[in-house]
Amino acid sequence: MIKKLFLLFLLTCWSGIAQSEDQKQIKALYEAALTEGKAHDWLNHLSNQIGGRLSGSIQAQRAVDYTKAQLDLLGLDRVWLQPVMVPKWVRGTPEFAYLETVPGMSTNVPICALGGSVATPLGGLKAEVIEVKGVEELKALGNAKISGKIVFYNRPMDPTLINTYAAYSGCVDQRYSGAEEAAKYGAVGVIVRSMSLRLDDYPHTGAMSYGDTPVNQRIPAAAISTKGANLLSATLELSPNTQFYFKQNCRQLEDVQSYNVVGEIRGSTYPEEIMMVGGHLDSWDLGDGSHDDGAGCVQSMDVLRLLKKTGYKPQRTLRVVLFMNEENGLRGGNKYAQLAKEKGEKHIFALESDAGGFTPRGFSFDCSDANFEKVQSWKELFEPYLIHLFVKGGSGADIGPLKNDDMVLAGLRPDSQRYFDHHHAENDTFEHVNKRELELGAATMASLVYLFDKYGIVPPKKIKG
Amino acid sequence: MIKKLFLLFLLTCWSGIAQSEDQKQIKALYEAALTEGKAHDWLNHLSNQIGGRLSGSIQAQRAVDYTKAQLDLLGLDRVWLQPVMVPKWVRGTPEFAYLETVPGMSTNVPICALGGSVATPLGGLKAEVIEVKGVEELKALGNAKISGKIVFYNRPMDPTLINTYAAYSGCVDQRYSGAEEAAKYGAVGVIVRSMSLRLDDYPHTGAMSYGDTPVNQRIPAAAISTKGANLLSATLELSPNTQFYFKQNCRQLEDVQSYNVVGEIRGSTYPEEIMMVGGHLDSWDLGDGSHDDGAGCVQSMDVLRLLKKTGYKPQRTLRVVLFMNEENGLRGGNKYAQLAKEKGEKHIFALESDAGGFTPRGFSFDCSDANFEKVQSWKELFEPYLIHLFVKGGSGADIGPLKNDDMVLAGLRPDSQRYFDHHHAENDTFEHVNKRELELGAATMASLVYLFDKYGIVPPKKIKG
Repeated sequence: MIKKLFLLFLLTCWSGIAQSEDQKQIKALYEAALTEGKAHDWLNHLSNQIGGRLSGSIQAQRAVDYTKAQLDLLGLDRVWLQPVMVPKWVRGTPEFAYLETVPGMSTNVPICALGGSVATPLGGLKAEVIEVKGVEELKALGNAKISGKIVFYNRPMDPTLINTYAAYSGCVDQRYSGAEEAAKYGAVGVIVRSMSLRLDDYPHTGAMSYGDTPVNQRIPAAAISTKGANLLSATLELSPNTQFYFKQNCRQLEDVQSYNVVGEIRGSTYPEEIMMVGGHLDSWDLGDGSHDDGAGCVQSMDVLRLLKKTGYKPQRTLRVVLFMNEENGLRGGNKYAQLAKEKGEKHIFALESDAGGFTPRGFSFDCSDANFEKVQSWKELFEPYLIHLFVKGGSGADIGPLKNDDMVLAGLRPDSQRYFDHHHAENDTFEHVNKRELELGAATMASLVYLFDKYGIVPPKKIKG
Repeated sequence: MIKKLFLLFLLTCWSGIAQSEDQKQIKALYEAALTEGKAHDWLNHLSNQIGGRLSGSIQAQRAVDYTKAQLDLLGLDRVWLQPVMVPKWVRGTPEFAYLETVPGMSTNVPICALGGSVATPLGGLKAEVIEVKGVEELKALGNAKISGKIVFYNRPMDPTLINTYAAYSGCVDQRYSGAEEAAKYGAVGVIVRSMSLRLDDYPHTGAMSYGDTPVNQRIPAAAISTKGANLLSATLELSPNTQFYFKQNCRQLEDVQSYNVVGEIRGSTYPEEIMMVGGHLDSWDLGDGSHDDGAGCVQSMDVLRLLKKTGYKPQRTLRVVLFMNEENGLRGGNKYAQLAKEKGEKHIFALESDAGGFTPRGFSFDCSDANFEKVQSWKELFEPYLIHLFVKGGSGADIGPLKNDDMVLAGLRPDSQRYFDHHHAENDTFEHVNKRELELGAATMASLVYLFDKYGIVPPKKIKG
């Protein structure tokens, strides 16, 4: 009994010590981020000296060079580039659109080509418009009502959803598949309401796909600003024969060489167990990609730097990966996973930040129940930093291809209210990123990495028999 | 036994029903706020049609007229104005300042007079500077080193504190009492580093006091932007004899008539129990007071409107109060409490929103342990809206004078990271308020009001004997 009590006493002491050691290390990470973080400086360069970094662009290459050089300066054990071929789509000259109720009476509206779209004919495209709330409506309307027209997808994001990503997910099929579906019914073009909860004049671009549509049947697709969409809808109600004109000369070029940027601190005890943090280095071309996903890149870079700054030496190998081509191909994410598989690398943990540089609220986890339970036991450590959200859910597009049952995938979950005001639009720019919010995100990521490094993951149950 | 089980069954059912009724009502409030909230429209008018609303100004009067008219439109049971005399301090012509290392070589720096400060002499004031980190340093320096100089308070806000209000509290004595203290040692003027965590060119004003300093011994006090403060500090290090020049012609006029704006829905069952929500209608004059505290006013107004919209009829009397003169006098808050006392009104609950229109994170409560426990039992109801923070702490300056042991005071706690970027500065403007974040705050307040209305507060324990 005495022995038992003594053991209990020791255990209590130990857990007390361990707890306070964790608290101390996490506090050090937050303090370092808030007083000597580098994320904001790096982002300033990426955004203001380089700018929008669409895959295959000169800016994307400059971003590869810059971030590799910055990682080289951190004194990591290894920094390298992973070659990957990426698609190259170019927007061409600025798009132009108007609606015309009677010939000669036109009103300009702000549009932008969707990423991957074909161009309009050289002189532009003019046609009547049929407004729908989604691809499901097309079938009921049929060829008779759609053929020869421009399909206008106008289902807005649901403002009542607190998580704005859920609202985005509920709409984005219009953008991604709208052209493919409309072409089946003879539409000549597609206009999609921008994926934004705000009423403003910014059109939001983003990836779209033609699926299996033969090249000669592909129709041009553009996003219209939310105000433009409201105007178009109201105009159609008054004048159903309103014509819509738009012109864009974007095109898809040959694939070009690009790179994932990777840096690594080798683990002191379990070097074969890899933990990864990352974001994507490419962005759309309209803004400078500060939130999407410059923020995630510089936060990920700072995770390694902050751990070093605070004198923490990881037991496991810690990697930062800046993925290329998340926006329109995911080639970087796929390549990284493919190489990891070929080399037989064992990733135990991967964390992506690709939801904007806003105040961090927590993480979503894609992992076993046992690991999720483990993570939840760390919640208290995050409370002083107002990090409360630990939920099961998606992680990140780039790390998705790595997924297996033996690892934990996670995504940083920043406050989502402002994200879609900027997402894929001209106003995704540096001045909309708050320095402290960005830094808190980096510290929150570093803290989770520290805990996984220290305590590892729960290994999967071996299958019996 | 069977009877007991049956009772338990009934109780379980009832609590199940009650719970889902609460969930339903709260959901309705959030949905109404996010789809048909009025807060953003009202704020647009207050900010862009009226502007900064310093006590005693024509804008403050316009804000009284406007908000009263808007409350009149809501169909409340009663809307009225509470007369209150307020101080009137005017900034005068724009301030001007430079530092001069050698005669003729000067660099301009952005300053603004602190609220309540006296003017400099007509031709301005020029003197050597002594930099300190706080009023405690003055005594050690003594008259010899301070007399005839400008005291430069340069202790920055602590960036490592996650709650930026704590960092503000740790610095604001320099602004509030800096001039009073420096005058004791013969200083001729005071320059205070702006209360901001950001490095930029905005000087931040705010209230200061001369305490008992005789009128003829009062020295002018101004805030300098954080960048200006860093420049001044660095310059002093290189050239300790650097002269600082500043000119301001602000002054204190006679008190003028103003008003608190009050609206009320009379309680159906307990009309004598008053619940109050509010913010302050006055603001500083540099920006348009959108975050401080236009946001709190329009959120408070929308609390009553949202409850009506969702068909909820309060059992207790619900009041919105838009207080005048929080910034430089608290006359409105004191007057409201005084009148409440005179009339023998029984306030059971008061909630203030005066921390910016940012994403709400929760509330701080100034109340008995029993009531705090009660409040915590509601936490789960707020989780779907990412409201996690329920802490003991301050409530709000305006409702403070109401305080007694028989009531619950609370303050909305929005995310604080960006607040001091804008607080009391020229960039506290409408475009920095996100519509959804503002609306979520209103819904969060309305939900708490609903719960207090439905369940009341825990009455204070009667003193035995």
